[in-house]
Amino acid sequence: MNFGMVIKVIGNLLMFEAAALLPSLGIAFYYQESDFFAFLQTIILILIFGYSMAKMPVKSNRLKTKEAITIVTVGWVVVSIFGALPFVISGALPSFVDAFFETVSGLTTTGATVIDNIEILPHGILFWRSLMHWIGGMGILVLALAIMPTIGVGAFQIFKAESPGPISDKLVPKMKDTAKILYTAYLGITVIETILLLFGGMNLYEALIHTFGTVGTGGFSTRNASIGAFNSRYITTVITVFMVASGVNFSLYYELYRGRIRNITKNIEFKVYMALFFAISIIVTINLFGYYDSPLDSIQHGFFQVASIMTTTGYSTVDFDVWPSFSKAILFFTMFIGGSAGSTGGSIKVIRLIILFKLVKREMVKLLHPRAMIPIELNGKMLSTDVIANVTGFFFLYLLLFIAGTLFVSLEGIGFLSAASAVAASIGNIGPGFDLVGPTQTYSFFSAPSKIVLSLLMLFGRLELFTIFLLFTPSHWKKD
Amino acid sequence: MNFGMVIKVIGNLLMFEAAALLPSLGIAFYYQESDFFAFLQTIILILIFGYSMAKMPVKSNRLKTKEAITIVTVGWVVVSIFGALPFVISGALPSFVDAFFETVSGLTTTGATVIDNIEILPHGILFWRSLMHWIGGMGILVLALAIMPTIGVGAFQIFKAESPGPISDKLVPKMKDTAKILYTAYLGITVIETILLLFGGMNLYEALIHTFGTVGTGGFSTRNASIGAFNSRYITTVITVFMVASGVNFSLYYELYRGRIRNITKNIEFKVYMALFFAISIIVTINLFGYYDSPLDSIQHGFFQVASIMTTTGYSTVDFDVWPSFSKAILFFTMFIGGSAGSTGGSIKVIRLIILFKLVKREMVKLLHPRAMIPIELNGKMLSTDVIANVTGFFFLYLLLFIAGTLFVSLEGIGFLSAASAVAASIGNIGPGFDLVGPTQTYSFFSAPSKIVLSLLMLFGRLELFTIFLLFTPSHWKKD
Repeated sequence: MNFGMVIKVIGNLLMFEAAALLPSLGIAFYYQESDFFAFLQTIILILIFGYSMAKMPVKSNRLKTKEAITIVTVGWVVVSIFGALPFVISGALPSFVDAFFETVSGLTTTGATVIDNIEILPHGILFWRSLMHWIGGMGILVLALAIMPTIGVGAFQIFKAESPGPISDKLVPKMKDTAKILYTAYLGITVIETILLLFGGMNLYEALIHTFGTVGTGGFSTRNASIGAFNSRYITTVITVFMVASGVNFSLYYELYRGRIRNITKNIEFKVYMALFFAISIIVTINLFGYYDSPLDSIQHGFFQVASIMTTTGYSTVDFDVWPSFSKAILFFTMFIGGSAGSTGGSIKVIRLIILFKLVKREMVKLLHPRAMIPIELNGKMLSTDVIANVTGFFFLYLLLFIAGTLFVSLEGIGFLSAASAVAASIGNIGPGFDLVGPTQTYSFFSAPSKIVLSLLMLFGRLELFTIFLLFTPSHWKKD
Repeated sequence: MNFGMVIKVIGNLLMFEAAALLPSLGIAFYYQESDFFAFLQTIILILIFGYSMAKMPVKSNRLKTKEAITIVTVGWVVVSIFGALPFVISGALPSFVDAFFETVSGLTTTGATVIDNIEILPHGILFWRSLMHWIGGMGILVLALAIMPTIGVGAFQIFKAESPGPISDKLVPKMKDTAKILYTAYLGITVIETILLLFGGMNLYEALIHTFGTVGTGGFSTRNASIGAFNSRYITTVITVFMVASGVNFSLYYELYRGRIRNITKNIEFKVYMALFFAISIIVTINLFGYYDSPLDSIQHGFFQVASIMTTTGYSTVDFDVWPSFSKAILFFTMFIGGSAGSTGGSIKVIRLIILFKLVKREMVKLLHPRAMIPIELNGKMLSTDVIANVTGFFFLYLLLFIAGTLFVSLEGIGFLSAASAVAASIGNIGPGFDLVGPTQTYSFFSAPSKIVLSLLMLFGRLELFTIFLLFTPSHWKKD
């Protein structure tokens, strides 16, 4: 293990975090609120640590798989620890565990909160909380595009196998250029949604915060009642559209920009993602027809909530925890779908479910034709058994963690649906669940150990699991 | 499709069912209860149908995969339809849907009931209900050993790959001999448990019924309070031991008989099955220490209930639905473990979970060594990618059916835990679940469509799923 380089890169990451705290410092200054000092102290502290780490003398610049994995996972934890400081120092969340939970929830774009009344918090703190969604969302794109290929397995391989877009070598040979394209799309969507929300009557501050929550598929709001507080069909519609847009593989926006519409319409993950979204939304809407007086309300809340859960955003316009059993059950299972590969959405992701579906289909054909060799294709390309094994391994590990997590938080003595949905919402980076963690509730009642476990599950979900487990193997830490 | 042979074989199956009804006829005669006439009429009806079907003229005796699949699935449904008649005719369950549910629940060794008060039913009816468990349990051994190999995939392949025992060609070359060995074990265990229960103070009638429920991993009782009604530590212990014994691969009893103890202790599925049983039981027992005053009670009920759920039997000594959240959550997930391959236990089965675990482990190693070729071994033999794909396909399909079923029964407006556990208990052939389908409740409140769906799920679970789906493909029914 090249410890020097690991420390150096994490140091650079911290320098970046210090810079990311500046807007919040500015907002605190503008509103003349006391959190200004919390941000100032945090920035100074981070600069001291970050700078001394970044100046670490290194023998070699080489980064191998081991180092990449370590940087990603340790990096997220270190950035979360420092990112929690403004909450603690400002007194918004005096307990460090609470602050750590909130920060991990922000950076992993989960959006689960331990703050019972967010409306009394200073502007800078709320801005930092939501900006973390946006940075986290960006970070996921970096991970999927810049670091994962060095690791060589997991999300990126699927992404690569899947994407007919800028990832294919022919178009944009360099990773850096690819990243640039995706950031441009990310930034573009951010700007457009902000403008549209301004038109809906939000001020710039609220428009930005809700845009961060949407494009990062995070879900933090400035209001206790989330999007429901705005009571606006226009705002609900805008956010629905942008949640769905943020769950799309970002490389498809490059295709759109280049006018290659056929590459989008031919993309299997995009088609299934859209089909699932519309199918589930329509089913829920029909189920809600008896619940709301106005059919328009059923459509609005049905589509919004399905978009919110499926893309793993977690915003709410109503208390869907009191919806009919069927709608609640379908939303619960929707928590395990997630966005597309190469999007900011979390959870299992549509592409993996497609591959698992194809596997089932093949097994059925094999029942009648046991000796047939049937390859599994995706967008016309044959998937290797490696990718298939990776997907099934991921899926099973995801469920194992879901089970282990549910058992752990059950020790709190809470009901099964509360425990299971809290864990599904954490590992899937969604935010709200049902019952005790429903959209009108918070995670504040959990004990400190549960909060830490749920934070770890958010990280597991965000980093696509496999990487984190490696950190616990002793051989990983051997010095070269 | 060789329709002639399919009809002929199902006719023979019905003749066997008529014979299986004779003991119940005798019991009804002995107790001079009115269900005697219900059994008499059913037997006559079955003989008429069965005989005319069995005498069907056939062009060819050839049975190919297609025919085998059709016989298995259609056969189970036909046998269930006729098996439901005594309930309807005797008036025990006047609704045919209820009677069909109860019969499928019996034959699939599920043990879910729609009868709110079983203690008022005649002896013959209760005996038939439980005898179906025993016949169903035997049927599963036939399936795993005599029919599955012609199909060539699924449970049997794993069983074959796994078992170092009588399945291996060297020992007992003929399928028929293998079946004989397993039946002997099944019968032997039945006799021993019956005797032990007689010692516990049960009369022969109750001893037989509870033995059928145990060795078939079914769960039907003669008492509304299930095993709890006997309030006997001795009976509870005997049934715990025999439930666990019935979830073991039956070929291991042949090894025991031949004195090849090492083949048992080396068997990976046996080891993991036992380890899981003890680990979960101990954890639940510890969790119950605060719930029961006496530690002995905690041990007794903890071990009994874990054995009951894990082996998919479904007996209860207490209302575990009011246990602490943690114990309930762990029991819920235990519903997805099941017995060993080649046992009468249902659900996913331990061997599949082992393979999935090994898959996850391999994917983690591959993260560090992407180009490594790492085979997955089981008892020293390498598993083919075919078997691995089959296991993962099965697992995913199982979950899909669980999700679809839960959504369907959620339309009843019941809570998530009720819906999810009813479906898990049906597809896993367990019986009781939680909340509205808890151990002190029944399935009687469900609507007819839900009862039919749950019955189908029991069949799906019992026949290991893949076969049933094929019946819905039009090409399956093409005439040759």
